[in-house]
Amino acid sequence: MPGINIKKERISLAHGAGGALTSELIGRCILKYFKGAVLGALDDSAVIDLPSTALIFTSDSFTVNPLFFPGGNIGKLAVCGTVNDILAQGGDPLYMSMNLIIEEGFSFSDLERIMASMAREAEKCGIELACGDTKVVEKGKCDGLFISCSGIGRKVLNISPERIKTGDPVIINGTAGEHEAAIFNEKSGMFSTKMRSDCEGLTGLFNAVKRFGDKIHFMRDPTRGGIAHNLHEIAVKSGKSISLKGKDIPVGRNVLALAELTGMDHLYFACEGRMLIICSPDISRSVVSALKKTGYTRASVIGIVERPSGSELTVEMKNGKERILKELDFSLTPRIC
Amino acid sequence: MPGINIKKERISLAHGAGGALTSELIGRCILKYFKGAVLGALDDSAVIDLPSTALIFTSDSFTVNPLFFPGGNIGKLAVCGTVNDILAQGGDPLYMSMNLIIEEGFSFSDLERIMASMAREAEKCGIELACGDTKVVEKGKCDGLFISCSGIGRKVLNISPERIKTGDPVIINGTAGEHEAAIFNEKSGMFSTKMRSDCEGLTGLFNAVKRFGDKIHFMRDPTRGGIAHNLHEIAVKSGKSISLKGKDIPVGRNVLALAELTGMDHLYFACEGRMLIICSPDISRSVVSALKKTGYTRASVIGIVERPSGSELTVEMKNGKERILKELDFSLTPRIC
Repeated sequence: MPGINIKKERISLAHGAGGALTSELIGRCILKYFKGAVLGALDDSAVIDLPSTALIFTSDSFTVNPLFFPGGNIGKLAVCGTVNDILAQGGDPLYMSMNLIIEEGFSFSDLERIMASMAREAEKCGIELACGDTKVVEKGKCDGLFISCSGIGRKVLNISPERIKTGDPVIINGTAGEHEAAIFNEKSGMFSTKMRSDCEGLTGLFNAVKRFGDKIHFMRDPTRGGIAHNLHEIAVKSGKSISLKGKDIPVGRNVLALAELTGMDHLYFACEGRMLIICSPDISRSVVSALKKTGYTRASVIGIVERPSGSELTVEMKNGKERILKELDFSLTPRIC
Repeated sequence: MPGINIKKERISLAHGAGGALTSELIGRCILKYFKGAVLGALDDSAVIDLPSTALIFTSDSFTVNPLFFPGGNIGKLAVCGTVNDILAQGGDPLYMSMNLIIEEGFSFSDLERIMASMAREAEKCGIELACGDTKVVEKGKCDGLFISCSGIGRKVLNISPERIKTGDPVIINGTAGEHEAAIFNEKSGMFSTKMRSDCEGLTGLFNAVKRFGDKIHFMRDPTRGGIAHNLHEIAVKSGKSISLKGKDIPVGRNVLALAELTGMDHLYFACEGRMLIICSPDISRSVVSALKKTGYTRASVIGIVERPSGSELTVEMKNGKERILKELDFSLTPRIC
């Protein structure tokens, strides 16, 4: 009887109503994958013991479309986004919350795939799911699944825009724009070859650079708006100018081809597994070498912080001319995260 | 030119895309109302200093339908739900995050009304908005507005189900089931008189009872599933039985009428401004008196914790007979929170 099977394999409104069926959903799709002790108590809130007093608190919603894409899915992306936001504030990730808003009729198997990959990424990144909430809305009232996460971390690096100095190098751990290119390609079907998102939690990268301590001045994960929009914002906040060398910015062949075909600029494409690191000039080579040893073989110095000039951010092109990079009004592809 | 006005008064996809238009939206609709210093930095994350080590971390999504209802709206409800979850763990509320998922075309003026009432309730409850995120999805891909919040509090009362003892009284601060009755009535239009939700953040109540310290054994805000479902869960977790006296449970005339007309049990109706307090018997009268002085004139002892019997939760009816109250499979009204 197919009707019955479909019912069992699909999430209903009652699964989000807070009673026994919600407990079943949580047991079947969430606790099966997340085994932390704090979450296990299954209270409305978690009580957590923290040794330090300076905490990082971050929050993001994820509405990425499509839910599954080469290199990741909405759940993996939610963990990476939460973890990378904490790291970019100089914090060790500790705990996260997860709120699910599920459309009635969503399949249990898709939810399980998403939860399993979230749990894997969370374990890899050293963050523990502490609390969460599950709502189900009627068919047509959301787009499959939305996930909201908050994260808590302990600040261990003293980084802030005020610490950025003239002469500091700007380092990135890999190629530009792969997340947005992958989502754009999935939506448009422009290239038949799959383009893979760089979606990745960067705790390993952070652990490799945090030994440089106070010599790390600033970090930022260049998500929406990519390298250009984010560095523009950093230049404004620090009251400096930043100049990039185009030839030194690593970029994949497919991303470049997509940018050229569409007339878009890959420097504005969102990344989800990249970190911009601004540090003291004397550790520049050591940081790049530490990143390479951690597996980021294309880590590079891509620019330098300069005294404030008329324009906040410039890039030197192949022909030696300078191009001014401005703030982005809105991102190029809708619902990339 | 009405077309242009409509465009200006409606939120577009570009307002959620992370660029200059997102900043405009945040400035116009959020920062205008929330003036905390932590949020003002407008970073992706907040850095917060905390004097204590035992933290409460809670998280909820709000998908209530309708967005506006007598006594509140989705934003006020989000603050109350977050604050009351922290209080119910014995914590002083400190910081919260706010993630907005907005449907393209949602009106700026509705968003402003919601933000203004969130900010008012947050100030009243002593919680500061620390960080947040704004996403906009295409028309038809969400239901107006969803809000996800996480909250952080400092644990100041040592409450847990294990501390509940035989003989402890069960106290409530007011009438049962008004939130769910209000939402049900809005959806069904059953009564032409407005029924008002009890939606309220209970920091004032918490401040009035926390001086009783260790003599407060347990607290719980009876949201989804109401008094009955929540007390059933508490009985199971504490390994005790709880018996209620029906005639002592305060309930409004309208709520009772709605329950009788629909055949539903108001003891399972969600409350959003009520707290169940289980305490040492010797402070029972002092707690009720403290609640009354704080404005909760209908505060009452509604039951008592007993040695484990065959049934976790019972209520004595008017005719003197006992009725067994079971766990609720799913809540009676969809999308009440």
